[in-house]
Amino acid sequence: MSADLKRDMLAMGQAARESARALRESSNDTRSEALRVAASALRARAPEILSANAEDLKAAADSSAAMRDRLALNEKSVEAIAQGLEAIAALPDPLARTLAHWKQPNGLDISRVATPIGVIGMIYESRPNVTADAAALCIKSGNAVILRGGSDSARSSHAIHAAMLDGLRAAGLPDACVQLVQTTDRAAVGEMLKGLNGAVDLIIPRGGKSLVARVQAEARVPVLAHLEGICHVYVHQAAKLDMARAIVRNAKMRRTGVCGAAETLLIDKAVLSSHGVPILNDLESAGCEIRGGEAVRAIFPAAVPATEEDWRTEYLDAIIAVKAVDGVEAAIRHIEAYGSHHTESIVTEDAATAERFLAALDSAIVLWNASTQFADGGEFGMGAEIGIGTGKLHARGPVGVEQLTTFKYAVRGSGQTRP
Amino acid sequence: MSADLKRDMLAMGQAARESARALRESSNDTRSEALRVAASALRARAPEILSANAEDLKAAADSSAAMRDRLALNEKSVEAIAQGLEAIAALPDPLARTLAHWKQPNGLDISRVATPIGVIGMIYESRPNVTADAAALCIKSGNAVILRGGSDSARSSHAIHAAMLDGLRAAGLPDACVQLVQTTDRAAVGEMLKGLNGAVDLIIPRGGKSLVARVQAEARVPVLAHLEGICHVYVHQAAKLDMARAIVRNAKMRRTGVCGAAETLLIDKAVLSSHGVPILNDLESAGCEIRGGEAVRAIFPAAVPATEEDWRTEYLDAIIAVKAVDGVEAAIRHIEAYGSHHTESIVTEDAATAERFLAALDSAIVLWNASTQFADGGEFGMGAEIGIGTGKLHARGPVGVEQLTTFKYAVRGSGQTRP
Repeated sequence: MSADLKRDMLAMGQAARESARALRESSNDTRSEALRVAASALRARAPEILSANAEDLKAAADSSAAMRDRLALNEKSVEAIAQGLEAIAALPDPLARTLAHWKQPNGLDISRVATPIGVIGMIYESRPNVTADAAALCIKSGNAVILRGGSDSARSSHAIHAAMLDGLRAAGLPDACVQLVQTTDRAAVGEMLKGLNGAVDLIIPRGGKSLVARVQAEARVPVLAHLEGICHVYVHQAAKLDMARAIVRNAKMRRTGVCGAAETLLIDKAVLSSHGVPILNDLESAGCEIRGGEAVRAIFPAAVPATEEDWRTEYLDAIIAVKAVDGVEAAIRHIEAYGSHHTESIVTEDAATAERFLAALDSAIVLWNASTQFADGGEFGMGAEIGIGTGKLHARGPVGVEQLTTFKYAVRGSGQTRP
Repeated sequence: MSADLKRDMLAMGQAARESARALRESSNDTRSEALRVAASALRARAPEILSANAEDLKAAADSSAAMRDRLALNEKSVEAIAQGLEAIAALPDPLARTLAHWKQPNGLDISRVATPIGVIGMIYESRPNVTADAAALCIKSGNAVILRGGSDSARSSHAIHAAMLDGLRAAGLPDACVQLVQTTDRAAVGEMLKGLNGAVDLIIPRGGKSLVARVQAEARVPVLAHLEGICHVYVHQAAKLDMARAIVRNAKMRRTGVCGAAETLLIDKAVLSSHGVPILNDLESAGCEIRGGEAVRAIFPAAVPATEEDWRTEYLDAIIAVKAVDGVEAAIRHIEAYGSHHTESIVTEDAATAERFLAALDSAIVLWNASTQFADGGEFGMGAEIGIGTGKLHARGPVGVEQLTTFKYAVRGSGQTRP
C-alpha cells in the first residue's frame, strides 16, 4: 500500500514536471483561454459540484460549524469562483516581463526575464474554492500544480477539478498541468514534502497553524507561507480620534478569522484616556473581549488582565490584547519582540513618526492610516492571491501571479570570450 | 563540550540578530565607510595576515596542490581583496530601491521597497578571500553574517576578520555584524544549518559538491547555492567557425575549475566535420581530453568513448564530453535531460534559432554567442558576487548585493478601512 502510494505520487511528480515544460512554452492566450473555458465549465457543472458538495457536507455532519461553513458551496459561491477564474485570465501575462536590462562595456546585452517556477505543491484544508483559485493562479503563471486539499472536501474538489480539466483540454494543455491528489492517505502529503524526487520546486501550504507548522517542519523543498499573523495597530498620540476608531474597529472586527486581523492594539500613554476609552468602548459594543495591561485596566476596568502570552497570541477571534506604550520607539520594540512579521499599522497625522514606523519594522506589510485587513492580494490590486508569505526569501506579503514566477538571465553577445 | 558549543552558537545567532537591526537602520554611508576602513586595515595588517597564512600553509603541507593554491595569499592578493572591498563600498545602495509603486482606486499608496534579508550564514571551504568578500557583500546589503570557513584557513581568516572588525568599529557598527566561527568542530556547521533558534534567515554554502550537498540535505532554513555547473556550449549549424572556436576554447579552457566552465559540447551533425574537427583540434592542443559519442569519434578518432555518465558529469578539469545533435530542439532536449540549470550558450548567426534556445531553456543563465565563463557577478556588472544560485526561488544566477536583499510593502493611506 505504502509502496503503491509512493509510486503513484512519484508518477504525479514526473507528469507535473513534463507538463510544466508545455506550460512554460505556452502563450498567455492559451493559458488564459484554459481559465475562461474552465469558468464556463464550472457554471455548466454547477449542479454536479453542488451535489458533490452536499455529500461532503453530509459526511461532515459532526464537524464544527466553522468547518462546515468553509466547506459549504452554493450557486452564488460557484459563480464567484467562475468570476475569479475570469479575473485571473484577464490579468496581464506575468511571464511577459523583462525585470531588468543593461549592457556591459564589452557589449554583452543582459536581460533578467520572468520565468515560471516550475511545479508547485499546494497543500490546503477543506476549502473547495482553493482548488480552483490555486489552479488558476498556477496556470496563469505557467506553473504545473499538484493539489492536495482537505479530505472533507474531496468530492467537491474532485468536481471542481473536472471543470479545470475541461479548460486545459480546450486550450490544448496537458491534463497533468493541474493534478489533484485523490487519496485521503496523509502519507501523500509526506511524499509531496519530500519533493517527489526533485519534481516539486515549491510547496505552498494554506490553512491553520498546525498544517503550516507541519509543512515547515517536514518540507525538504522551499515553502512559501505564513505561520501566523500577529498583526498590530499602533495608535500614536497624533492620531485623529475618528480615524483611529474606524481603523481599529475594522482591523479587529471586520473579519476576525483572517490572517490580517489585528490581534494587539498599542496606544500611546498620552492619549490613553482621550483615544483609548472610545476605541475600547467601540470594540466592546461590537462584541470584542478586551485584554489589557495595568495602565489599560486603569482607564477601562472591564478589561481582562493580559498575560505575557497574550502579546504572542493570534486569537483569530473577537479578542484583542491592548497595551499602553510610550511613543513610537516603544511600539516598534514591542512589535519586533512579539510580532510575526506579517502586517502592522500606525495611525497618526505626524508624517515623520509614520515614516519612522514604516522604515523600522521588519514586517511584510507596514501601513500608515489604513486597516491591517488590507493585507490581501485582491486589495493590493494583484487580482487574486494564493496566500501570504512572511518568510524572508523570494516573496513577502500577498503572493499573486507575479510572485509565482522566478527569473533567468538571457545574455546576447557577439562572440565575447572572457579574458 | 557539545552543550557548550550549542550555547556558543546560539549566542552568536542572538548577537547576529541584534546587530542585523543596527545594520538595517544604518545609512549607506556608514556601511560603505566600514568597508573602506576595513580595506585600509587589510593593507596595514598585511604582514600579520601573510604570517598567519604562512602558518596555515605550513599546517597544510600534506594537502593537495590545488587546495594549497586556494589557501595561499601574497601581497598582491591581499591588495586585490582590499580593492574588492573598496569596489563594493562604491556600489549604489542596494537598500535605496523602490521596486514597484502604485496607487489603488481607494487611494492606498503601495510601495514595494528593498530591505535586508537579516542574518546570513556563510559556510565555505579554505579560501581566505571569501572571509572578506562575503563579509563586505553582507555589510553593504545591510545583513549580519556568521562566517564559517574551512579549518585549514582558520588563521588567515581570523587575521582578515580582525581587519573587518576595524572597519565596523570605525563606522560605529556592532562587532557582531560580522562574526567568525572560531571552533573547527564540524558540529558548529550542523548548528548553523538548524538555524540557531530562528536567528539565521539564509544559508549560503560555497565550495565543492560534497559541502553544498551536505548543506542542502541538512539545512532547516533556506539555502542559496548551486550544487554543480554542468554547462553546455551548443554549436549550431549557422555558427561562424572562428567565433565557435574562440567561444568553445574559452568556455572550456580559460579556467577549468570554475562553475561556469563548459563540460559538454553539442555540435550540429551538419557541421560536425567543418566545425567539429577544428574545434576539437584546438581543445586537444590546449591539453583537453575529448570524450565523444560514436559520430564524434568517426570524425575525431582520438576521442575517448563517452558513456552515459559523461553527460551528467561536472569534470572541473581539462576534459570535455562532445555529442553530435540534430538541430536546436535536440540540443534543448539534451540540456534539459542532463544539465544542472546553471549556464548554457548557443553559437549561431541565426537569430530565430538563438531566441528559441534562450526562451526554451530553464537555466539560470542562457547566452547567445558568448562564453559560459561570463557566469560571474563581476562580469554581469554586479561589482562582486557571494555565489551563484541555481534554485528556483528568490534569486538565480550571480548573487550580488541586490540579490542579498528582500522586500516589504509600505502602504500609505488616509484612514481607509476595508468594506
